[in-house]
Amino acid sequence: MIQVNDNFIKLPGNYLFSSIAKKVNAFKSAHPEAALIRLGIGDVTRPLPPASIKAMHRAVDELADAGTFHGYGPEQGYDFLIQAILEHDYRSRGVELRPTEIFVSDGAKSDTGNFGDILGTGNKVAVTDPVYPVYIDSNVMAGRAGELQANGQWNRLTYLPCTAENHFIPSLPQESVDMIYLCYPNNPTGTTLTKAELQKWVDYALAHKALILYDAAYEAYICESDVPHSIYEIEGARSCAVEFRSFSKTAGFTGVRCGYTVVPEEVKAMTASGEQVALNHLWNRRQCTKFNGTSYITQRGAEAIYTAEGQAEIKETISYYMENARLMREGLLSAGFTLYGGVNAPYIWVKAPEGLDSWSFFEMLLHEVNVVGTPGVGFGPSGEGFLRLTAFGKREDCQEAMNRIKNWAGR
Amino acid sequence: MIQVNDNFIKLPGNYLFSSIAKKVNAFKSAHPEAALIRLGIGDVTRPLPPASIKAMHRAVDELADAGTFHGYGPEQGYDFLIQAILEHDYRSRGVELRPTEIFVSDGAKSDTGNFGDILGTGNKVAVTDPVYPVYIDSNVMAGRAGELQANGQWNRLTYLPCTAENHFIPSLPQESVDMIYLCYPNNPTGTTLTKAELQKWVDYALAHKALILYDAAYEAYICESDVPHSIYEIEGARSCAVEFRSFSKTAGFTGVRCGYTVVPEEVKAMTASGEQVALNHLWNRRQCTKFNGTSYITQRGAEAIYTAEGQAEIKETISYYMENARLMREGLLSAGFTLYGGVNAPYIWVKAPEGLDSWSFFEMLLHEVNVVGTPGVGFGPSGEGFLRLTAFGKREDCQEAMNRIKNWAGR
Repeated sequence: MIQVNDNFIKLPGNYLFSSIAKKVNAFKSAHPEAALIRLGIGDVTRPLPPASIKAMHRAVDELADAGTFHGYGPEQGYDFLIQAILEHDYRSRGVELRPTEIFVSDGAKSDTGNFGDILGTGNKVAVTDPVYPVYIDSNVMAGRAGELQANGQWNRLTYLPCTAENHFIPSLPQESVDMIYLCYPNNPTGTTLTKAELQKWVDYALAHKALILYDAAYEAYICESDVPHSIYEIEGARSCAVEFRSFSKTAGFTGVRCGYTVVPEEVKAMTASGEQVALNHLWNRRQCTKFNGTSYITQRGAEAIYTAEGQAEIKETISYYMENARLMREGLLSAGFTLYGGVNAPYIWVKAPEGLDSWSFFEMLLHEVNVVGTPGVGFGPSGEGFLRLTAFGKREDCQEAMNRIKNWAGR
Repeated sequence: MIQVNDNFIKLPGNYLFSSIAKKVNAFKSAHPEAALIRLGIGDVTRPLPPASIKAMHRAVDELADAGTFHGYGPEQGYDFLIQAILEHDYRSRGVELRPTEIFVSDGAKSDTGNFGDILGTGNKVAVTDPVYPVYIDSNVMAGRAGELQANGQWNRLTYLPCTAENHFIPSLPQESVDMIYLCYPNNPTGTTLTKAELQKWVDYALAHKALILYDAAYEAYICESDVPHSIYEIEGARSCAVEFRSFSKTAGFTGVRCGYTVVPEEVKAMTASGEQVALNHLWNRRQCTKFNGTSYITQRGAEAIYTAEGQAEIKETISYYMENARLMREGLLSAGFTLYGGVNAPYIWVKAPEGLDSWSFFEMLLHEVNVVGTPGVGFGPSGEGFLRLTAFGKREDCQEAMNRIKNWAGR
């Protein structure tokens, strides 16, 4: 009889966003007159850059004519996009990569989720806490997480707490781990690592022959100069790290779906017989077997982001969101809150007032000022006592939310 | 130290298409004047239906305006597309499915490759021979195939030979198997199963509590009335089969990337503790964790295929390819070849002349008439002695190729 992958059965339901929806709906039923402002969403609201819009219209027209039609593209992505990535995302920062080290895809969620396909199930995995849930859930599915314990943690995962006490800088693991997920700028805390801090992780990975899975989906929001945009700005990273990038937050591609993964030739892993093999070749084989390339239209839209026009347009949109973040930081600080992030990232990690946990703080903001955030504990136990706010909303909503919060704090 | 998934190391390189390319390039160097005609490719050449082009332009414009912008969509696909699928692909054929049973994706290659994620690695897998290589390779990667033997077969897979002797109708396996991949209309042979023949497979699956993974990517090419378009036209299939569909060959979406997978609620599999769980829920969890939905633009383009205009347009394109197939069948038959397929499928499976194997036949056509096919043995041992030709080329190329072949045969 057909058997399931039993690891899937171990996964509890993910109730964070449905719990939020239930509480919000109950509130709306009781207070139909309330003007709710949602600052919890992780999705963008600004339209695509006009350069991408033009490029996608052109691409659609190409597909309308047999003479310019494009069928199956390379599973790894079109060279026009790969060359733009190499030039603008890497060469401009002093990082040289080979075209065959870039794998264009339908987004960083797919890639971070699927990358484990090529890795052994016996590898020991480290994740930060709080964390983007895909890293944990995809490892549960693969059988690397072990069993769920009463405290909500998996017994085979190594958790790296990121708290106000350690300034959200995770400590190197005590034990030896094989796979380390790092996301910087961080979702959900909005914090970053300096080059010196990231160097410690690369050194650890080299010393322990571990692999860093570096999620740089929010790279475009970095403003400060000592924050690395790519892990390959760090000495030695080419031998121990893969990097995930996304156009979702950079250029509003959440509904268009495009990202890419960098797998340098030097990154190796061991076979059962003790041989070293390049992960680049295994990932290529995985993608050629279980993926069929990214839409031509989408890739033309992504290429256009790298034109002078496209660069100016995405900078404007990112500035819009970061001005939201600045207003929100300022408003929350003047209302007496303690907060983190929001400087190099579109996420603000707000500490709940003394004595409140994440959900009580969530309820308080919902009921007192009709503002919806995301309870930090939903991202892991170390998120308890925090709330995530995002800067992806409309300017007027951010301003109104801050006015309400300041008035409420001043009462 | 980081370990690889050792199953990947077992995979031999896939040299079929690179071997073809090398031989073709060597021929071109030696005979630069020759006008090669490629009838081996599995990619479409006709442009997209104008209805889809219009819909995609509209969708691109929606993404240009904050008021109509679409960010993250449902991982399962937009309801507008799911409703069109339910109505036109299923209700029209007397099959009722629920919206939650449809999972829109970036294509059938991803879905057939990824579906194994939710299934146990101990399941016994059956594949037809010849076969679309993704079914085998993705199971090798998951560890279900065992070891590669000297005869090119994997010791834990059950092969179901499809030969001229059994009229390309595979026999039910002697042993009990848990997962059965069936692709009809078939790639590469172009053959089909009647309802009565498919019923035997459904009955086998029900009796053995096995799962049928039914790939119906070429469904739109079916002309004959006794050929089922969906496995759900077969009694009992709702309890034992998932179905993969694609817009690639139906509407020229090979470069746009859209397909869908049907997972009826009744399809169950067993956990280690003997409990029955619905695969629908596990696939939903897999997609929500490791996939982030299909491009909004793409889904609007796919929806347009189901309008009256879109239906007329895709029928015209499919007729174009099937007229190619008819011309090719006629030409090859009149040149004295034995062939199969090409009636309900865009693939023609040509028997090599007596005494020639697949590669010798390939070389003969390349050198004598400058026509490129795909050696059947590349799809599995039972493909030896055959060549796959596709009807996706230009009309004039198909005609010219047949003229050359007829002249050459008449010499």
